[in-house]
Amino acid sequence: MIVITSNQTPEEQINDIIAVIEKEGLQVHLSKGSDRTVIGLVGSVNPKLAEHLRQMKGVENVVKISKSYKLASRDFHPDDTVIEVKGVKIGGEHLAIMGGPCAVESPEQIDEIAKLVKAAGAQILRGGAFKPRTGPYSFQGIGVEGLKMMAEAGERHGLLTITEVMTPEYVDVCAEYADILQVGTRNMQNFDLLRALGTCGRPVLLKRGFSATYDELLNAAEYILAGGNRDVMLCERGIRTFETYTRNTLDLSAIPVLQGLSHLPVISDPSHGTGRRELVEPMAKASVAAGANGLIIEMHTDPDNSMTGDGVQSLFPDQFSNLLQDLEKLAPLVGKKFSTQEAITIK
Amino acid sequence: MIVITSNQTPEEQINDIIAVIEKEGLQVHLSKGSDRTVIGLVGSVNPKLAEHLRQMKGVENVVKISKSYKLASRDFHPDDTVIEVKGVKIGGEHLAIMGGPCAVESPEQIDEIAKLVKAAGAQILRGGAFKPRTGPYSFQGIGVEGLKMMAEAGERHGLLTITEVMTPEYVDVCAEYADILQVGTRNMQNFDLLRALGTCGRPVLLKRGFSATYDELLNAAEYILAGGNRDVMLCERGIRTFETYTRNTLDLSAIPVLQGLSHLPVISDPSHGTGRRELVEPMAKASVAAGANGLIIEMHTDPDNSMTGDGVQSLFPDQFSNLLQDLEKLAPLVGKKFSTQEAITIK
Amino acid sequence: MIVITSNQTPEEQINDIIAVIEKEGLQVHLSKGSDRTVIGLVGSVNPKLAEHLRQMKGVENVVKISKSYKLASRDFHPDDTVIEVKGVKIGGEHLAIMGGPCAVESPEQIDEIAKLVKAAGAQILRGGAFKPRTGPYSFQGIGVEGLKMMAEAGERHGLLTITEVMTPEYVDVCAEYADILQVGTRNMQNFDLLRALGTCGRPVLLKRGFSATYDELLNAAEYILAGGNRDVMLCERGIRTFETYTRNTLDLSAIPVLQGLSHLPVISDPSHGTGRRELVEPMAKASVAAGANGLIIEMHTDPDNSMTGDGVQSLFPDQFSNLLQDLEKLAPLVGKKFSTQEAITIK
Amino acid sequence: MIVITSNQTPEEQINDIIAVIEKEGLQVHLSKGSDRTVIGLVGSVNPKLAEHLRQMKGVENVVKISKSYKLASRDFHPDDTVIEVKGVKIGGEHLAIMGGPCAVESPEQIDEIAKLVKAAGAQILRGGAFKPRTGPYSFQGIGVEGLKMMAEAGERHGLLTITEVMTPEYVDVCAEYADILQVGTRNMQNFDLLRALGTCGRPVLLKRGFSATYDELLNAAEYILAGGNRDVMLCERGIRTFETYTRNTLDLSAIPVLQGLSHLPVISDPSHGTGRRELVEPMAKASVAAGANGLIIEMHTDPDNSMTGDGVQSLFPDQFSNLLQDLEKLAPLVGKKFSTQEAITIK
Repeated sequence: MIVITSNQTPEEQINDIIAVIEKEGLQVHLSKGSDRTVIGLVGSVNPKLAEHLRQMKGVENVVKISKSYKLASRDFHPDDTVIEVKGVKIGGEHLAIMGGPCAVESPEQIDEIAKLVKAAGAQILRGGAFKPRTGPYSFQGIGVEGLKMMAEAGERHGLLTITEVMTPEYVDVCAEYADILQVGTRNMQNFDLLRALGTCGRPVLLKRGFSATYDELLNAAEYILAGGNRDVMLCERGIRTFETYTRNTLDLSAIPVLQGLSHLPVISDPSHGTGRRELVEPMAKASVAAGANGLIIEMHTDPDNSMTGDGVQSLFPDQFSNLLQDLEKLAPLVGKKFSTQEAITIK
Repeated sequence: MIVITSNQTPEEQINDIIAVIEKEGLQVHLSKGSDRTVIGLVGSVNPKLAEHLRQMKGVENVVKISKSYKLASRDFHPDDTVIEVKGVKIGGEHLAIMGGPCAVESPEQIDEIAKLVKAAGAQILRGGAFKPRTGPYSFQGIGVEGLKMMAEAGERHGLLTITEVMTPEYVDVCAEYADILQVGTRNMQNFDLLRALGTCGRPVLLKRGFSATYDELLNAAEYILAGGNRDVMLCERGIRTFETYTRNTLDLSAIPVLQGLSHLPVISDPSHGTGRRELVEPMAKASVAAGANGLIIEMHTDPDNSMTGDGVQSLFPDQFSNLLQDLEKLAPLVGKKFSTQEAITIK
Repeated sequence: MIVITSNQTPEEQINDIIAVIEKEGLQVHLSKGSDRTVIGLVGSVNPKLAEHLRQMKGVENVVKISKSYKLASRDFHPDDTVIEVKGVKIGGEHLAIMGGPCAVESPEQIDEIAKLVKAAGAQILRGGAFKPRTGPYSFQGIGVEGLKMMAEAGERHGLLTITEVMTPEYVDVCAEYADILQVGTRNMQNFDLLRALGTCGRPVLLKRGFSATYDELLNAAEYILAGGNRDVMLCERGIRTFETYTRNTLDLSAIPVLQGLSHLPVISDPSHGTGRRELVEPMAKASVAAGANGLIIEMHTDPDNSMTGDGVQSLFPDQFSNLLQDLEKLAPLVGKKFSTQEAITIK
Repeated sequence: MIVITSNQTPEEQINDIIAVIEKEGLQVHLSKGSDRTVIGLVGSVNPKLAEHLRQMKGVENVVKISKSYKLASRDFHPDDTVIEVKGVKIGGEHLAIMGGPCAVESPEQIDEIAKLVKAAGAQILRGGAFKPRTGPYSFQGIGVEGLKMMAEAGERHGLLTITEVMTPEYVDVCAEYADILQVGTRNMQNFDLLRALGTCGRPVLLKRGFSATYDELLNAAEYILAGGNRDVMLCERGIRTFETYTRNTLDLSAIPVLQGLSHLPVISDPSHGTGRRELVEPMAKASVAAGANGLIIEMHTDPDNSMTGDGVQSLFPDQFSNLLQDLEKLAPLVGKKFSTQEAITIK
């Protein structure tokens, strides 16, 4: 950490600052410039100290040098993390495709969609049983019954399953029925939930908060990793900007940036990231071209009658299937290949 | 709700749209313009229908006319809501001041601060026992012991107390010890928590998510109101923008806007809203001038040694006291007066 | 246009609104809902009227139905615009690549870079002679001499040239020396400049303002088109968001969105859009995968010593060359091919 | 300036970095931490060098310590700048009020409004003769005739005048007729215009770009100051955020922040800053409470028929007059008083 003093800070204030640092058992490196002094701290710095220093007289700025996350950092783990679930690999050169409806609605619906997801070449079935909704009067999901329906459909068609968990008390039941648990954008900083996922025994897909910085996303991942769960995927799903034509602004730079800062796989969600069906295909291709390790895409056999109203961003089955065929051609141009569908052993 | 068709939409598509609307039992009003047709829907519209229509062929846009929240709306409740807790009134012409440390640290700390908060003329003691922190390695609060310390300090000095509750399972214990419960910015859309607060029997201060629109804030309030709890305060605490000099951008227009859309009291938080001690005083005054029904302000006897690092935005006791004296002069110019401190009966 | 009244607007106010509309010679369509009335206007509406209505008593909202731009709209011109300059085609299936330094520095520098740009397979040489700089003490470009140097280098190596014009008085001299003129992000709403470009006789690349909506960008293009110049390219170059790790957030959804709303070619600028060299390659590929009609990329033989400090986002020549080889393989997967380099006739 | 190396940067790369710095004639201060080295530069640093260093191998970050503006900085000029024009003082303890229509429309209109502006207690008449408009088909102002009308109205009623200048070629004529020139939000980084204003001989009110940081605003002011014109006012007029209910988000923290960083007067524009008439009064009061040195407010005798459509944010004359009466009571509470109207000598 570095402390930068104000213009013409008197000697005495600088000495006060140094005294505070040395009281914490840290070493000090002093650089006197023409009008400012820079004080370097050597050793592991308590965040409290940073804030304390920031408000001392004579301090203009305090700059953190080390990152606040460790386990999520590529410095700590230089090789790509490759998560393996029942033979399906996510991360590194493996491109994983997750497809399915916004919400599980009935056994027939999820079974039919699972069949189409598998036939198109994807490896993972997505579907929500509990739905976060902005207003209290909207459909909130069908609950545990939905988890069972999806688990059965996944097993029947040889697909992994992923579902969103919204609250710590549901972590266990979601982990019982689904292969991968998902944290939604509004819960990225629900710290109790993150802690519960640290010991859930399932890989976790962590969606970026729609106003979260890269640093905040990686710190949120750190909560899960610090609990002992090393199988975390990061997911870019669009950020909130001044542009309202799209539901969110899908920030594809997040893919190479996060892959540079971290070893964790990065998944892109072009469905929520755009909120418009006609943009899903181009942005899915752009995501893969930018180096994504996977995609999570909404698909529905009857999007006009989906129960959540997210049908507007769901692909029709033939669109989904055509997109995957295109992606299989595109992937090798950026050093990726589709994760195998074959090795999945039935639960 | 209104459906706007694309340029030159064929008759047949318009008929399809009308059929879908009428199937839902709604009436249709048609306006044919020179190049577009506008279809008005009469009756209460299911949100699913809106989304369904939005993606039909020939539809360019769907415009909602009615608001998605009802109980929070001034249309529904034209008079200001005035919340009364042990004789302290919040809302309408009453200006309520909440002051105290970011985190409760010890019985001595909270007692000393409570004494100063009371002496300065405030009515409510704030303090956190459970702290949401961006990274897993930061101080997370001292828990239930902190609640007890604060309750005792409040009782001894004749102050109401307010504290943040972070997860549904802690709602009961927080409600046992605190007079008012607070929902933090990261939890504004933690819907399970909101639902739990709907039946907690305590007034709730709901902080605006740092990227939440007015509409989303009012919908979040609706979750609590719909549960039967009518004592909700809205709190503007700064939004995330491109400007990084301040921790957040305190959006003071939110005060008159929310007071126009809703009958609920609006509180301003200039401490988190700016993140810089030197801005708290001017922005507190600006908040009152803009019509705020109350303020929540961090104050600490020794901010340089506060345990959360939020000391950088905490006022010193004399700053807090001077500010309140200035606010007492300012309030009558905008039709407000300080809530009484006198009527508080000891628990 | 549609006028939506407030809840329970009295009959008399509705009549006032109707009177104002009919005074303008427009027809009115009335839809009475359960608690609100919707008033449709038929005919071409003056923007003044919209604002007038918005503030009348009883009006809750005014919704525009028609777009405010015409010539830029795909409704007006359903086929893709393909701009042809000396045999090079931009738009439709043709992928145009513009490469070169941020600033022209010397005849040797621009000649060497032009040679490398051509060898790599690009068609257009970019370079700035006049530079917009945030602070007054930074290098401001070398002026008209730079234009001449670039024109000579382009001619010698068979490349079109593009350069930024910053003020109306320089439009003529820039048009004399360059094949394509560029409007920078800070000038997107410099309306005098846009008007001057409407009659400049050269194609124009219009960069999106870093906080401009799609609608504002298309309105800015309309200024140029309305002046008689139909050869306009739109350029996505990153928007300002809360994320500061990247210089801007490259909004790739802009590519398919603008291509849907407009017939004009859409170019992507991954150099300014990210501000970081290591992100240029993945975001260039992502741009093409998203359907871009071209790319504008900074390349420098000695970026560490570039005069503008934008070297940090400039590719080295071998990176540029490798990228173009990859793009030639990627383009056919999305229905694009490189614009020919061959047909260029020397000026 | 400080260079922070990456984790475990080899000795040899550190030596390369040092060599580059020393080649520029600067001194180096080295601080070796446990896993990173920090290199301090002593002396005045060329911005080019910063960028060069940022991209060298082994460099993780480069932190600027000194500000890029000088003349605008309070370090350079510790006392408040007080601008005096014909006896009216702007800055320091003087509160200046500018009122008038968005656009000058006719001699009668501007004369009537001037009379009301004066009677209400304001000192400065605002009005636009040239209007920047998003689309090319909107009313663009009446030009030089409007300048003359406003000058006459100002003279007749003893008011200073302020008007927007949009392009360098109009600086002279605007300076001939108006007492103060205004730079609009879209022109904050129109560097040719800023340079022309540096020698125009009139005070300049510089509006913050709607997406400009404080730092960029102060750098834009520096352009004008560096040209020799020391009479610059900064103006907060709302920034673009995700919230669309208000036209912009008026960032009142800008007032105390800019007053801390700079000695220049800070004016607030609650009309454009909110875009809604009902918010002008509360936000005007909030601006003064936050310490603004002045206000610029739209007022119109017949806002429903204003020619620009900005009538929606214009106060009626009685609202303007009542607001000023309230502000005269509020000002002394924050150490301000209304600038005198008396000393104005007729031109």
